[in-house]
Amino acid sequence: MTLTTLKDALHEELKDLYSAEQQLVAALPVLAASATDPALKAGFEEHLAQTETHVKRLEQAFQLMGQEAEAHTCQAMKGLIKEGNEIAGEQAESTVLDAMLIAAAQKVEHYEIASYGTVCTWAEMVGLDEIKELLGQTLEEEKATDEKLTSLAEASVNANAE
Amino acid sequence: MTLTTLKDALHEELKDLYSAEQQLVAALPVLAASATDPALKAGFEEHLAQTETHVKRLEQAFQLMGQEAEAHTCQAMKGLIKEGNEIAGEQAESTVLDAMLIAAAQKVEHYEIASYGTVCTWAEMVGLDEIKELLGQTLEEEKATDEKLTSLAEASVNANAE
Repeated sequence: MTLTTLKDALHEELKDLYSAEQQLVAALPVLAASATDPALKAGFEEHLAQTETHVKRLEQAFQLMGQEAEAHTCQAMKGLIKEGNEIAGEQAESTVLDAMLIAAAQKVEHYEIASYGTVCTWAEMVGLDEIKELLGQTLEEEKATDEKLTSLAEASVNANAE
Repeated sequence: MTLTTLKDALHEELKDLYSAEQQLVAALPVLAASATDPALKAGFEEHLAQTETHVKRLEQAFQLMGQEAEAHTCQAMKGLIKEGNEIAGEQAESTVLDAMLIAAAQKVEHYEIASYGTVCTWAEMVGLDEIKELLGQTLEEEKATDEKLTSLAEASVNANAE
């Protein structure tokens, strides 16, 4: 299939994100289990519940485009999660490991911020305002998670690891 | 080796970034060759020159830590580049392809923004202010590149692809 319009590109990007969020649902319990700091552990668990909502919002977005929900393996998320698993398997003091897990999680958040940013811009440009609204909520939640991770790192985890 | 301090984590993160930037030096010419919009093509070429500087700065950072420069395969960048190459190989109208290449490049920038953000925070916390200064320059350049890509997308590429 030749991609001829920005709407086609949007559809492709939704398939990538649908795969990315599904991969993340499977990966977050591993990160949560590896974390020691109770606030960090709780943060990962809370983000898992949020991520499940993000998957559902993507399904709604496909519907709004008149398409079946479909995943196209997101290679970037595959790499990000591989890296997270490598970290979870490191021999490290628990405080150092927590700092590294936050760093890995922030990379994931930044990937999603970039993707949802693109998707919202494209949705607006092609007049799919409902998709922009819907996934704009997810974008804001990803940004808030990134900020929460920074606060957590600054407040305790990095200081403990020092 | 057990990672016992935040300095150890910093060292690991430098190895990851050293691999990431080297992979990017190899990948940017492919993105430049796939782009049609002259400003986008020039942007990728300019960023290649910048990325070569980023590699050198990382070598200086290793030196400042009293370590040999060493790369640890960055799985995330491997995935990001795989995704970029997939896009470069898509059958697509050139304007649509340009919009998708920008999206892929912004994901790469966001990965680096997250990584350099972590590295700068950790370097400051362990008293390696010279590393913070040095890689803080790279962080600012990555942010500027991301903003440039947004402007380019908004100004022409996305509008052409519509």
